Amino acid sequence: MRYCSDCGEPVRLMVPEGDNRPRFVCPSCSTIHYQNPNIVTGCIVEAEDKILLCKRAIEPRYGLWTLPAGFMENNETAQQGAARETMEEAGAETSVGELYSCFNLPHISQVYLLFRATLAQPGFSAGSESLQVALFSENEIPWNELAFPVIEETLKLYFSDQKKGDFKAHSGTIKRISSDTREYHTEINY
Amino acid sequence: MRYCSDCGEPVRLMVPEGDNRPRFVCPSCSTIHYQNPNIVTGCIVEAEDKILLCKRAIEPRYGLWTLPAGFMENNETAQQGAARETMEEAGAETSVGELYSCFNLPHISQVYLLFRATLAQPGFSAGSESLQVALFSENEIPWNELAFPVIEETLKLYFSDQKKGDFKAHSGTIKRISSDTREYHTEINY
Repeated sequence: MRYCSDCGEPVRLMVPEGDNRPRFVCPSCSTIHYQNPNIVTGCIVEAEDKILLCKRAIEPRYGLWTLPAGFMENNETAQQGAARETMEEAGAETSVGELYSCFNLPHISQVYLLFRATLAQPGFSAGSESLQVALFSENEIPWNELAFPVIEETLKLYFSDQKKGDFKAHSGTIKRISSDTREYHTEINY
Repeated sequence: MRYCSDCGEPVRLMVPEGDNRPRFVCPSCSTIHYQNPNIVTGCIVEAEDKILLCKRAIEPRYGLWTLPAGFMENNETAQQGAARETMEEAGAETSVGELYSCFNLPHISQVYLLFRATLAQPGFSAGSESLQVALFSENEIPWNELAFPVIEETLKLYFSDQKKGDFKAHSGTIKRISSDTREYHTEINY
């Protein structure tokens, strides 16, 4: 951020009075511009005892597999966003159920909210952001071709719960250790 | 938003190519300025079989009671944010546990994440944003003096689970029906 989005004057990075961290502040109109984490919302679609994955047609991680998910929009619920992303990326109409995983990605200031879901209508097809959409059982999952650690961790928790016959909400944190390598530290709290 | 925060030129509200909703776009430098929901993170602190509430010393809802909670910051986890807010508002050092409730407030584009927590150190005291901090059992809760519907719904779920002896994560949506009155529609999904 270089300019005030309210008045167009250059902003300064400073700790506002009564605050304890630097914010972009406009010296001209006094607006404080807060920047906060974004929510990524998506679905674990269960069909025919399998899970629906999308092969990414966009960067980052082009050609790798992911759960349908994307940035939550203003004025929608996380569940509506999860269903919307699943329709956009996988052409699938879903009934969104329980919140299954809540993962912090503090290095990129994102929180993933992934919901269990079922197909409300049969059928699915690759949207413009996907090369392919398919259903996978646990031993068919392309574990070495998953796009993001948060997807791998969620699927591992899911299949572990499935074996126990007891699904519960999980939370944890995945932090990138180095910006040069794709190395992460994962902490599952629950 | 009136000006581009990257280059300072006036922005236009338009649907970018390949998108399906209006965004603030800079005609000068082509930056698309996405606006997304914010996370409010907080704690349900359990101590001496009671719950810790803070009496607000700030607007909105000055003088009414709430759970310690506030906007999640960049580069922290939701659990760290919940502990930070509880320290700031209630002077309490907490061990943050399971995610307990996830509520959408789509009319103001907020998602509340409230975690169960315990005191890591004995004691608490009102921070600058609180007039008073105190512990309440279910029948002591000032139900008619709670600041926000999301706090009331979370506490109702909490005491209901406590009676059952079975706490599970809940999700739902609270939507303001009218901007003139404080009337809300609440949907508990789980």
